[in-house]
Amino acid sequence: MSDIQHSALLTDLYQLTMGQAYFDRGMEEVAVFEFFVRKLPPSRNFLVAAGLEQAIDFLERFHFTVDELDWLANCGRFSDAFVDYLATLRFSGDVHGIAEGTVFFPNEPILRVTAPILQAQLIESRIINILHFQSLIASKAARCVLAGPDKLLVDFGLRRAHGAEAGLWAARASYLAGFSGSATVLAAPLFGIPVFGTMAHSFIQAHDDEAAAFERFADAQPDNVVLLIDTYDTERGARRVVELARRLRDKGIHIKAVRLDSGDLADHARKVRAIFDDGGLAEVGIFSSGNIDEFAIDTLLKAGAPIDGFGVGTHMDTSSDAPYLDCAYKLQEYAGLARRKRSEGKATWPGRKQVYRHYTDAGTLSHDVLTLVDDKHAGEALIHPFMMNGKRVSASEGLTATRERVAGELKRLPVALRDLRESARFDVRVAPALEALAAEVDKRQA
Amino acid sequence: MSDIQHSALLTDLYQLTMGQAYFDRGMEEVAVFEFFVRKLPPSRNFLVAAGLEQAIDFLERFHFTVDELDWLANCGRFSDAFVDYLATLRFSGDVHGIAEGTVFFPNEPILRVTAPILQAQLIESRIINILHFQSLIASKAARCVLAGPDKLLVDFGLRRAHGAEAGLWAARASYLAGFSGSATVLAAPLFGIPVFGTMAHSFIQAHDDEAAAFERFADAQPDNVVLLIDTYDTERGARRVVELARRLRDKGIHIKAVRLDSGDLADHARKVRAIFDDGGLAEVGIFSSGNIDEFAIDTLLKAGAPIDGFGVGTHMDTSSDAPYLDCAYKLQEYAGLARRKRSEGKATWPGRKQVYRHYTDAGTLSHDVLTLVDDKHAGEALIHPFMMNGKRVSASEGLTATRERVAGELKRLPVALRDLRESARFDVRVAPALEALAAEVDKRQA
Repeated sequence: MSDIQHSALLTDLYQLTMGQAYFDRGMEEVAVFEFFVRKLPPSRNFLVAAGLEQAIDFLERFHFTVDELDWLANCGRFSDAFVDYLATLRFSGDVHGIAEGTVFFPNEPILRVTAPILQAQLIESRIINILHFQSLIASKAARCVLAGPDKLLVDFGLRRAHGAEAGLWAARASYLAGFSGSATVLAAPLFGIPVFGTMAHSFIQAHDDEAAAFERFADAQPDNVVLLIDTYDTERGARRVVELARRLRDKGIHIKAVRLDSGDLADHARKVRAIFDDGGLAEVGIFSSGNIDEFAIDTLLKAGAPIDGFGVGTHMDTSSDAPYLDCAYKLQEYAGLARRKRSEGKATWPGRKQVYRHYTDAGTLSHDVLTLVDDKHAGEALIHPFMMNGKRVSASEGLTATRERVAGELKRLPVALRDLRESARFDVRVAPALEALAAEVDKRQA
Repeated sequence: MSDIQHSALLTDLYQLTMGQAYFDRGMEEVAVFEFFVRKLPPSRNFLVAAGLEQAIDFLERFHFTVDELDWLANCGRFSDAFVDYLATLRFSGDVHGIAEGTVFFPNEPILRVTAPILQAQLIESRIINILHFQSLIASKAARCVLAGPDKLLVDFGLRRAHGAEAGLWAARASYLAGFSGSATVLAAPLFGIPVFGTMAHSFIQAHDDEAAAFERFADAQPDNVVLLIDTYDTERGARRVVELARRLRDKGIHIKAVRLDSGDLADHARKVRAIFDDGGLAEVGIFSSGNIDEFAIDTLLKAGAPIDGFGVGTHMDTSSDAPYLDCAYKLQEYAGLARRKRSEGKATWPGRKQVYRHYTDAGTLSHDVLTLVDDKHAGEALIHPFMMNGKRVSASEGLTATRERVAGELKRLPVALRDLRESARFDVRVAPALEALAAEVDKRQA
């Protein structure tokens, strides 16, 4: 087997059983599938597109390995002819989508796949798996950025992220959304993301006294002295930092910051700030972690807590208040005919779509128009080609450019959408051409 | 880099910066860390231990690759001597834990690591990442099994699981907890888990009429005919199945089941059941999916809905009502001395612990005693050795044995703990010896 991230068997069985049926009947016409979110969780006013880069990467590499083909041939479900066909199968379709870091809303496709139906179907499960998770986390992280726009925000979530890939991709999605970096080391070599680290309580506990632990850590990491001061008593820890700072100064070592991880963070931050300011440590920052999310950041900062940065962990990496999006990858067209699912509560808009974005004179988002690709409208078209005939049309832009895009997007959000606690719905207008097509499809699909 | 699942850099930076400090000072004494859950989410009365197998596997393989060492050497944070030390580092410690599939409660360690502090620390982030997620999902899945004990339960969650590993491990954790299998193909070759699959709406939509789509699928997968009937109109779909069944019978093909994926599932199931029974299809099952969790299973079955099986997706693979556990991996002893963190709201029990489980005469769980390993008590000791000196003490037991253990555990749960909606707390008694040690540590750690 190839590694799990790139295995063609990381899919739902029905993609392959349907594939067998398409293969048997020679159904090779072009299908158009679009990935979109049906509706927002109650606590989200907007979403940030992410994971497109990994989706394209997955499609570029897509193939079945010898081991995977052996397994398929021997599992008793597939014909030899179909397995032979899969042996040479590569993704040869076109992909269109919106740029990573773009704000999007329900019913707006962020990815469109145009490919022979068998291919477009086999990749479904993993494409959803990739786009759903990163967009989920980028959207949550963007809310943290809105809550603490000038603060150092660091992803601390690896340990409770849902597995290895979730931990790494949460680092990527949050950095893309405006975080300063991550504590996850592997995110640095893999994605070029800045990594941050302090010390754990165990380091303090392994020493017979807290002051000695602080000093040893400073000696070992003189360029990055961030001390954890809440293991026993936060304020006593702060006073020990003041004493230590004098000794360290003689060695030429400066304390960058302290970390608070428990108790009433606003209260502790104020007391520690006062102890530091009185003790001549005005330049030592206060970094806070422990149960942090956008609501905690907002509440602490609005209460005037003198906190310079936050480690955001579990709540972001699991998107704990909304751990999934109601998203789908749906057939919109097959063999040149638009299609639509009408299942109760799950009806979708048919056809190949484009989104046109409109801004107010002040430059904030005003409304979007959802329509068909052939129905030209005014406004900024959001959907662009990413792959043609299975090949990328341009190189990856890199995370720095994506971060800049998100920063711009967040600036253009209307006040109501920026609110962390009140729901607001953005105006996405369905164009008459799209409504007419839906009615036509309903008449045909009896 | 090695693949992300086995990378030694899949850790938090502070593990390595602390490592540098331990290395500089020659702090190589034995540390004892334990992994436990601090408290249960409001909607959980018990947890099921899972992921121990992957944790042991991670420790057995633990090492830094040449690429990883190069990155460490060049990142500007670590001394050459420390990187040289890491080059030959392997996990050489002892590991004790409770068997996968065992029910456990807050403060009960499910894993204990006894190793030189630097090693025990470097592995922390990934060990938590592994144990947290699988235990989270096994616990959620066990609730689904309690809700539908005699039903076919299949994991459908890959697409909205948080990445590749989450999708695969959710398949493993739910199978271990009593699910019949998963839709995720890769779970079969990797873990030997039975895979299940039906068809998607797109298959129906790609055909000009629904009846033709049903027949083509049956022809292609004659041994596994499960038809999705809600794409346009569920009851009309059911009547088409009755007509088709006659034609298929002549070809020797039998329809196994239909799948309902939208609308009022209880109402549709009753109507479809009546159509099938009237149409001579009493043996065709009804399988249901779409927004299913333990509450939906319980409600549908208590309402008498004639549903034979459930596809459980997003809600299980993200543990949507409780997407994380408040868990920790904490230092309990260093250099022969018990240690304890006293941070506000996060104090832990010190020392190396054992759990003794007690049962009523009827064989249900009565209470647990949490104490120190040297403080022998009556009852069943839950914590056993898994690794000694970095090597497994016995081969993996295999998922079939683990499934049997969970089935036994669920039978022994008291009625109050089985309740899906009412909170109940199990009696975990802290032994006097442990309380005495905590008081002693507090006196010493000033």
